[in-house]
Amino acid sequence: MSNHHVYKKVEIVGSSTTSIEEAIEHAIAETSKSVKNVEWFEVQETRGHVTNGKVAHYQVVLKVGFRVEST
Amino acid sequence: MSNHHVYKKVEIVGSSTTSIEEAIEHAIAETSKSVKNVEWFEVQETRGHVTNGKVAHYQVVLKVGFRVEST
Amino acid sequence: MSNHHVYKKVEIVGSSTTSIEEAIEHAIAETSKSVKNVEWFEVQETRGHVTNGKVAHYQVVLKVGFRVEST
Amino acid sequence: MSNHHVYKKVEIVGSSTTSIEEAIEHAIAETSKSVKNVEWFEVQETRGHVTNGKVAHYQVVLKVGFRVEST
Amino acid sequence: MSNHHVYKKVEIVGSSTTSIEEAIEHAIAETSKSVKNVEWFEVQETRGHVTNGKVAHYQVVLKVGFRVEST
Amino acid sequence: MSNHHVYKKVEIVGSSTTSIEEAIEHAIAETSKSVKNVEWFEVQETRGHVTNGKVAHYQVVLKVGFRVEST
Amino acid sequence: MSNHHVYKKVEIVGSSTTSIEEAIEHAIAETSKSVKNVEWFEVQETRGHVTNGKVAHYQVVLKVGFRVEST
Amino acid sequence: MSNHHVYKKVEIVGSSTTSIEEAIEHAIAETSKSVKNVEWFEVQETRGHVTNGKVAHYQVVLKVGFRVEST
Amino acid sequence: MSNHHVYKKVEIVGSSTTSIEEAIEHAIAETSKSVKNVEWFEVQETRGHVTNGKVAHYQVVLKVGFRVEST
Amino acid sequence: MSNHHVYKKVEIVGSSTTSIEEAIEHAIAETSKSVKNVEWFEVQETRGHVTNGKVAHYQVVLKVGFRVEST
Amino acid sequence: MSNHHVYKKVEIVGSSTTSIEEAIEHAIAETSKSVKNVEWFEVQETRGHVTNGKVAHYQVVLKVGFRVEST
Amino acid sequence: MSNHHVYKKVEIVGSSTTSIEEAIEHAIAETSKSVKNVEWFEVQETRGHVTNGKVAHYQVVLKVGFRVEST
Repeated sequence: MSNHHVYKKVEIVGSSTTSIEEAIEHAIAETSKSVKNVEWFEVQETRGHVTNGKVAHYQVVLKVGFRVEST
Repeated sequence: MSNHHVYKKVEIVGSSTTSIEEAIEHAIAETSKSVKNVEWFEVQETRGHVTNGKVAHYQVVLKVGFRVEST
Repeated sequence: MSNHHVYKKVEIVGSSTTSIEEAIEHAIAETSKSVKNVEWFEVQETRGHVTNGKVAHYQVVLKVGFRVEST
Repeated sequence: MSNHHVYKKVEIVGSSTTSIEEAIEHAIAETSKSVKNVEWFEVQETRGHVTNGKVAHYQVVLKVGFRVEST
Repeated sequence: MSNHHVYKKVEIVGSSTTSIEEAIEHAIAETSKSVKNVEWFEVQETRGHVTNGKVAHYQVVLKVGFRVEST
Repeated sequence: MSNHHVYKKVEIVGSSTTSIEEAIEHAIAETSKSVKNVEWFEVQETRGHVTNGKVAHYQVVLKVGFRVEST
Repeated sequence: MSNHHVYKKVEIVGSSTTSIEEAIEHAIAETSKSVKNVEWFEVQETRGHVTNGKVAHYQVVLKVGFRVEST
Repeated sequence: MSNHHVYKKVEIVGSSTTSIEEAIEHAIAETSKSVKNVEWFEVQETRGHVTNGKVAHYQVVLKVGFRVEST
Repeated sequence: MSNHHVYKKVEIVGSSTTSIEEAIEHAIAETSKSVKNVEWFEVQETRGHVTNGKVAHYQVVLKVGFRVEST
Repeated sequence: MSNHHVYKKVEIVGSSTTSIEEAIEHAIAETSKSVKNVEWFEVQETRGHVTNGKVAHYQVVLKVGFRVEST
Repeated sequence: MSNHHVYKKVEIVGSSTTSIEEAIEHAIAETSKSVKNVEWFEVQETRGHVTNGKVAHYQVVLKVGFRVEST
Repeated sequence: MSNHHVYKKVEIVGSSTTSIEEAIEHAIAETSKSVKNVEWFEVQETRGHVTNGKVAHYQVVLKVGFRVEST
């Protein structure tokens, strides 16, 4: 059995009308539907769209890291 | 009529005693007083001042983008 | 008496199960236990750990600045 | 129905013997064969190979963004 | 009379359905409508939107520099 | 009355035949002619022109920050 | 037949208890199990975990590039 | 005979009144007059001068790589 | 009892006449003499000195992270 | 006796009403009061405060490096 | 006759016991001994050595640009 | 006699089938054939080529610094 792990990082953009944290949670939840073993995230960019002088939604660009199960 | 748009980005610092999101909203609201067609923002830096071991206020530096109406 | 100040910045990682702002507050509070005159912070990175498809905790890497009292 | 979207970005390198724009088009066309809902791209690097003192081909590294259809 | 100049840089986004160069020209032309003495530009980002697997338009983010006429 | 401030940053290039500090002072002085409440600056780039193997003038690119007076 | 190639880059983290080179080899070997035509890698970050004052394992974050076979 | 190569990179600025690609070709052609074995280039910056509200010429800053022939 | 941790990062330069890995080990070992709970490191820069056309020693600049024990 | 050295870098902000060089000297002098074997510095940022359209003081953020005496 | 120019940039480190400006002048003067048509410089890094708690000399890393005379 | 030195940095890519350190040594050795007074190097990038799921060779991009002997 191997004593080392390999991980992969994918770049995901989550959005939320409410908060930066919720945009992160949305990105993590969606990634976890198709990928197992999600372990961490790193925020790359925080941005958003504006409508009528208010934030319409936050967009957070994340690197999401997961452990690759060796085949 | 033109089929392309031109946008301008300005750099604005919003602050809030409460949250990063409120600091962003303050910056967007103030920009929208003098500029029309604000469409998006990009967070450049998040920082803040500290008093007595607590965050006194958050400061968020944003690029704010708006569409230029051709004259 | 001197008319100039010297500051030092240290790099601190705070964490929270709830929000980015709470992670910042935890880092500032802990730094203030051992350092006087904390005046500002700058967010360097925002990241976190994931368990079961949800954010387990946010980790925020800060530069924390404080005034050095000349001896 | 959800009022938020999740996007994914993949990193693609297109090439062309002719122009930077054609290298971008090649990368977008190839990505669109295997991915639906491609919405935007961001140029990361522009480079190329040289033969006999002339550009043999341009290579453009792109982030390509597409909307993830929630399952 | 002063022997030094002061310049200002503004951040402008031009777009084009055709080429990166045309997007730059559009941004320069629009800036020159409201600002005198435009002297140079610096490309910050090159990106674009995609429709049906093709580039719908290029977007080029520029810093545009112009000489400030001292008052 | 509001308990928060909004700031704007503009990008200015000052020059001087003598020193980096004088180039900064020239940029600040010119900005202060058209903008009130200038509070700080951040050096972005230091560069210059050369004639006959000597520095002809220094050019310093600054972000200059000022407080926006809410209307 | 096309005279141009398209490549894709994925971000992989390899680890090793022994050396940076072995961590790279582990990442490349694992990627090659699921992807054909791996051609190059670019080191993004080198880091590691520490136990009892010694390096427990090295972690190397790589971009791994492979040629996409047009369908 | 050695089984490894050494390369050198030089930084060159090409210009063109017409296009970014032509500015790159001009830089490559000039470099190839004095250096053998030019193999690749990497764009570092794209910028240009403006006259009367139009691009007067594009300037592209390149790293140009060539193989060093071992002596 | 608290359910969150605070970490501190310090910047250390290790050196070795032999390898990058040994330079990292030297930095970690020295840091662990004065700091408890060292958990990870991040390589910031790899450089070195040259004597007589050979590497005299490698220098590796690290961020070293350790858990702060709350008082 | 060891044939290698370990160094530490700390981040210090010096200020001066007069010049960038004096701000650097103030930071170095203050650091040298509490740390032995200071050997080098690296400027990270140059900034300052403005009062009445003039530079009130320069602030220079430095990394200051010193040799750690092995215990 | 060609209507375009090609420039080359070289990376030079100047030093001075006195000031950043003098370190720049030393680097420019030395470069001009072996290269014609030096036209501009760009500061990359400012650093220095410290002896006995004082700056022993400033070191400024410059890109120095000169026009290549076509052969 | 002058009390200051001027240095030049050149950008060199070394390669090795074996290790990152050997790729650095190859680059330093080759540079030292044509340049005197090589004093230091700085790693810019570490990358490599892959054949059959294994690292075929490491490529390390270095800045190599040497003292210029004033003429």
